[in-house]
Amino acid sequence: MIIVETIQALSKELKPLRNKIIGFVPTMGYLHEGHLSLIRRARQECDIVVMSIFVNPLQFGPNEDLDRYPRDFKRDSALAEQAGVDILFHPSAEEMYPTPNLTEVSVTQVSERLCGASRPGHFTGVATVVTKLFHMVMPDRAYFGLKDAQQVAVIQQMVHDLNFPITIVPCETVREPDGLAMSSRNVYLTKEERQQALILSKSLLAAKDGLTTGRWSTAEEVRDFVYQQISTQPLARIDYVEVLTYPSLQPIQKLTNQQIIVAVAVRFGQTRLIDNILCCGKE
Amino acid sequence: MIIVETIQALSKELKPLRNKIIGFVPTMGYLHEGHLSLIRRARQECDIVVMSIFVNPLQFGPNEDLDRYPRDFKRDSALAEQAGVDILFHPSAEEMYPTPNLTEVSVTQVSERLCGASRPGHFTGVATVVTKLFHMVMPDRAYFGLKDAQQVAVIQQMVHDLNFPITIVPCETVREPDGLAMSSRNVYLTKEERQQALILSKSLLAAKDGLTTGRWSTAEEVRDFVYQQISTQPLARIDYVEVLTYPSLQPIQKLTNQQIIVAVAVRFGQTRLIDNILCCGKE
Repeated sequence: MIIVETIQALSKELKPLRNKIIGFVPTMGYLHEGHLSLIRRARQECDIVVMSIFVNPLQFGPNEDLDRYPRDFKRDSALAEQAGVDILFHPSAEEMYPTPNLTEVSVTQVSERLCGASRPGHFTGVATVVTKLFHMVMPDRAYFGLKDAQQVAVIQQMVHDLNFPITIVPCETVREPDGLAMSSRNVYLTKEERQQALILSKSLLAAKDGLTTGRWSTAEEVRDFVYQQISTQPLARIDYVEVLTYPSLQPIQKLTNQQIIVAVAVRFGQTRLIDNILCCGKE
Repeated sequence: MIIVETIQALSKELKPLRNKIIGFVPTMGYLHEGHLSLIRRARQECDIVVMSIFVNPLQFGPNEDLDRYPRDFKRDSALAEQAGVDILFHPSAEEMYPTPNLTEVSVTQVSERLCGASRPGHFTGVATVVTKLFHMVMPDRAYFGLKDAQQVAVIQQMVHDLNFPITIVPCETVREPDGLAMSSRNVYLTKEERQQALILSKSLLAAKDGLTTGRWSTAEEVRDFVYQQISTQPLARIDYVEVLTYPSLQPIQKLTNQQIIVAVAVRFGQTRLIDNILCCGKE
């Protein structure tokens, strides 16, 4: 595995590989099984696997966890190499933003609800850095985890609208054996918070069961069910519970056979966790 | 010359040419010597020359001239072929925007003054369509005329900030023998308007002379000179006359040896003309 820290070095490595199928896995590092599953999928489908590790300041709000976001490059690079990365791109913030960034890529509608409402500017920061990284790597395929389902929807809309010559590959959420969705932020949790956080996956899986057995007829009923389930945990402070169409992320009333997302964001202490399930509103 | 009307056909033509140097000239058609000079420059510097003709609805305001913008594809394609275009891309609005466009590329600061102030949303429309076209063509070099100097500055800022792997080549404004800057919109002018419109190039060239001989010490004095010159023409309604740094397009007071732009937008009847000169503030 080759590690490069500058855009110029990355271009130099990629130049002789332009006739190969290039797969790209953009990450913020502190790798877990979710990230590794993206690498393995890219490894299967592409000739060359490029991963980036960059904690992007542009997608953090002023009171968010940019400074304390977990970092361990030594461990990350060992894991990346084991999982099959060929080129690991690890730029500094100065390399990515050498001058004040005046250009923004923004996606309306898909960005507006869920985390877009809770984290103003977040998805513009994501769309902008992903555009930059796409231009640096120019991959054929790029891999994103569905734990961040809204991010996947935003990137897919952006790739469609701006005609990026790139295929986006959404990959299933990877979970701990007890159901907790893998996240770099899970390390923030105390033992007690970690235990109570299991309600996210539990309530979402129960919602999926209820949906497949036709238990509810409106989105509101599904939302109320999940909301009440999560509220049973005393440490849980709900940011949102929403049931929307997917990937357009628009409100619905009656459940139909259209694909929907049940998405939650919940704080436990200082830690904000998200999780979701995708399924048909009606079988 | 090959003419293609779909993105798919364009990709198919370009696929076997990816090892060549590709030059790109994006236009809105109704070609004049200014456009042809871009093609000839691209022809000199590149293996393959791609030109697009697309009147982009996104960059026109609701009360602007989208519907009456001059079009003559037959004449354009003959001129393009003569000048050396290899592939002419001529998509419909439906091909470019098959679904409502939810993704915008916007550039702050550089977009805010001059035509950005007079035409809200114009440069976001430009940056967005140029991003789309860049992704379709993926050129090595792209050619833009300096008559639209703010457009060049916006595109250069965008390419820098978003790390497009593309070199932007700004090209000199081409003028009629009497000095009028070439523009597709010149056909709108009546004979009398056309005559009075000569004040734009005359006043700007006089400003350049004054600047090179150190006649003024502040930007305001240069602005006042050009403003008064243009005001001598009874049909001229001034939209703006501004003296700014270039390409950052920020106000200045004292003239220094920094590059500046003297830029004007003036209406004659229904027609809005722009022109500019670039030079050092002080020799």
